[in-house]
Amino acid sequence: MITRYTRPEMAEVWSEYNRYKCWLEVEILADEAWAALGEIPAEDVAKIRANATFDIDRILEIEKETRHDVVAFTRAVSESLGEERKWVHYGLTSTDVVDTAYGYQLKQANDILRKDLQNMLEIIGEKAKEHKKTVCMGRTHGVHAEPTTFGLKLATMYSEMKRNIERFEHAAKGVEAGKISGAVGTFANIPPFVEEYVCEKLGTRPQEISTQVLPRDLHAEYMATIALIATSIERFATEIRGLQKSETREVEEFFAKGQKGSSAMPHKRNPIGSENMVGLARVIRGYMVTAYENVGLWHERDISHSSAERIILPDATTLLNYQLNRFANIIKNLTVFPENMLRNMNATFGLIYSQRVLLKLIDKGMSREEAYDLVQPKTALSWDNQTDFRPLVEADEAIMAKLTKEDIADAFNYNYHLSHVDEVFERLGLG
Amino acid sequence: MITRYTRPEMAEVWSEYNRYKCWLEVEILADEAWAALGEIPAEDVAKIRANATFDIDRILEIEKETRHDVVAFTRAVSESLGEERKWVHYGLTSTDVVDTAYGYQLKQANDILRKDLQNMLEIIGEKAKEHKKTVCMGRTHGVHAEPTTFGLKLATMYSEMKRNIERFEHAAKGVEAGKISGAVGTFANIPPFVEEYVCEKLGTRPQEISTQVLPRDLHAEYMATIALIATSIERFATEIRGLQKSETREVEEFFAKGQKGSSAMPHKRNPIGSENMVGLARVIRGYMVTAYENVGLWHERDISHSSAERIILPDATTLLNYQLNRFANIIKNLTVFPENMLRNMNATFGLIYSQRVLLKLIDKGMSREEAYDLVQPKTALSWDNQTDFRPLVEADEAIMAKLTKEDIADAFNYNYHLSHVDEVFERLGLG
Ligand SMILES: Nc1ncnc2c1ncn2[C@@H]1O[C@H](COP(=O)(O)O)[C@@H](O)[C@H]1O
Ligand SMILES: Nc1ncnc2c1ncn2[C@@H]1O[C@H](COP(=O)(O)O)[C@@H](O)[C@H]1O
Repeated sequence: MITRYTRPEMAEVWSEYNRYKCWLEVEILADEAWAALGEIPAEDVAKIRANATFDIDRILEIEKETRHDVVAFTRAVSESLGEERKWVHYGLTSTDVVDTAYGYQLKQANDILRKDLQNMLEIIGEKAKEHKKTVCMGRTHGVHAEPTTFGLKLATMYSEMKRNIERFEHAAKGVEAGKISGAVGTFANIPPFVEEYVCEKLGTRPQEISTQVLPRDLHAEYMATIALIATSIERFATEIRGLQKSETREVEEFFAKGQKGSSAMPHKRNPIGSENMVGLARVIRGYMVTAYENVGLWHERDISHSSAERIILPDATTLLNYQLNRFANIIKNLTVFPENMLRNMNATFGLIYSQRVLLKLIDKGMSREEAYDLVQPKTALSWDNQTDFRPLVEADEAIMAKLTKEDIADAFNYNYHLSHVDEVFERLGLG
Repeated sequence: MITRYTRPEMAEVWSEYNRYKCWLEVEILADEAWAALGEIPAEDVAKIRANATFDIDRILEIEKETRHDVVAFTRAVSESLGEERKWVHYGLTSTDVVDTAYGYQLKQANDILRKDLQNMLEIIGEKAKEHKKTVCMGRTHGVHAEPTTFGLKLATMYSEMKRNIERFEHAAKGVEAGKISGAVGTFANIPPFVEEYVCEKLGTRPQEISTQVLPRDLHAEYMATIALIATSIERFATEIRGLQKSETREVEEFFAKGQKGSSAMPHKRNPIGSENMVGLARVIRGYMVTAYENVGLWHERDISHSSAERIILPDATTLLNYQLNRFANIIKNLTVFPENMLRNMNATFGLIYSQRVLLKLIDKGMSREEAYDLVQPKTALSWDNQTDFRPLVEADEAIMAKLTKEDIADAFNYNYHLSHVDEVFERLGLG
């Protein structure tokens, strides 16, 4: 991934150095397992554990000749050892190392993402509680509907992120797996004990059954989950972009002193962070499609997924790490304008209370159709002439024959809409 | 979906009639809930339950005028009732009905898919047990690797389908949800009790928090899961296509009496069912992308997802229903040629035993590099000249200085590769 969107912690996980380090750890642990089985001498394995090392340049040099990255690696490692070098890669096939190490690297990446997800969830939860009763316009189809609260908007994000965390935990456990089952998955040259031993030490799990490779439906689920989290962030970012449009201006991304919104238009404060989130979500959805196309490998494996995964696994986790951190900050520092929320609510001539007028008429015994046909023309009149809805209602004899002044006052009071907000927050565990 | 890929049971779930029937059920249950709350007369609700009905043509006629499908529906239903018609749609907004009914329809679709998944799992499991020890060539990169068994191939499918069933259960529960929280999700005009009551009666669950709509990340997860199942089937189908190529011919899709493989070439028996599976998987992956793009609705909902879901929800479940049934049959009736499997194994001059020769040399004290450099030229000689590998090994003094005749015989015996097959089957619960 380009450095612009790469955080150092995640960069380290996916560094060339760490990849080889993970490979080496798998090689050494496999030897330890063999020693535990009494198949190879424990002293030799102790020497390997103490001395085995590698030089990246040397690996690349050997790879030029062998055209096989794992062979180049094991040869480079062997150069750092004495006689005991003969046990390096003993009984293993390349992918035993590559895929098991991938599972270990993904675990490291996932541990970072787990913290990010938790952090973002908490920030959204806090902000939701803060604005639990901050009344604002609810909009459907972009058009004023009924009052809601800004806290409820955030609470939908909170609920969605809880679901995403649950999904992530399942998918993450899926890819935190290893396979040391040999060339075609038969364990012909290596007993299942080695796989179990190595995975346990790495904190991953042995895959129930494998071919030469781990099954790629695991990685497809994982990428679909990362893409879904990115897509949820896109939804939240779209909300902010909508609310920051000039005519609405109910929120604003934090605008730092010295920040520039436009080189030509000094007044501009733009939701560029949220726009960035939307763009990255589009990129990550592309990776998901690639991961799905990687599932259908030929027979006991082909290597068509390998090039793709070298790109999409690091890049997707790197981008999600970036998104989660940047978007958590956007929410944390969001400027909220409750006064503009009220202003906007009052900008549609009280039409947002039309349903309550309708319901009150039905309560008083009118049929839905009758009531609807009575109220709807008044709303049209109000909107077409851009005049207040309430006087039109109060001037209608058929309506006023059914409703009292108090009924009208009650119908036009937004507090009515907030009566269940506490209950919803309790459902979410944000009580 | 075109009728060619539509099974009647699933067609019924997605019929226009059933959609309106589900809408009506939601409307009636909501009224029952209101009556339970003492808000509307129980006698009126009893009349609605007894008499409410609809006529599809009449709905369409009204819709031409109202341009609102739910309004048209409620008006049509009202025409079948007396005075009590005023409680139809009482306190509800259109999407309370549409989305809650969708959850109910999806539950019906899912119940069909649950049976399909279980059926296919069992068929694969049976076939895997049947061919547990049917030896065949394992191939990586399409090239002979080491022996495996046809049962192990099927066992990887079995394991993958177990994962898919677990994923499906999670995603299915996600979309089997309802929301009756009003115009923007505040429950302003309807207490949460109605939502709980209706969902419980439908066998779905009330969504923790909603806007005007159910959150669409649920449907995105669902479509990603359906696409993953389709993609797994694609992998299995690709395996069959690979094994049915003329030069390989280890399996053949069942070829019925009277079936025609080609209008011009009478000899042809083609894996057309598996090819069909691959094509449909491509279609379903497209639906997944659409479902992800449906997540980011504006504010408390826009209706941009509606048109898309009218297509992709029925079509994806219909195609998966078709895939699961057709592919289960393909596996069930698959013709397997164990004799061709053996023939193919022996077609690469015994090169498939090269790793075992290598390991035996290391066992006898050689370093991996030394052994590799000794064996690899013999494999090249064998392959380049298309002659048997074993005599070349037996003629090599450096090798024979280390290995006995018995070692050689053992290295060239495929039974060695099957020693852990039982253990793998036990891991899978196929013991
Ligand atoms: N069976 C195998 N298992 C693992 N790696 C392999 C295998 N066969 C070849 N390789 C190496 O894997 C790498 C694939 O490169 P790429 O396609 O760029 O990911 C190359 O270095 C191959 O030589
Ligand atoms: N807020 C709403 N909730 C549910 N349905 C609506 C809403 N607003 C409009 N509709 C109707 O939903 C249908 C959408 O059509 P389509 O885009 O073809 O799915 C049309 O009949 C609209 O009139």
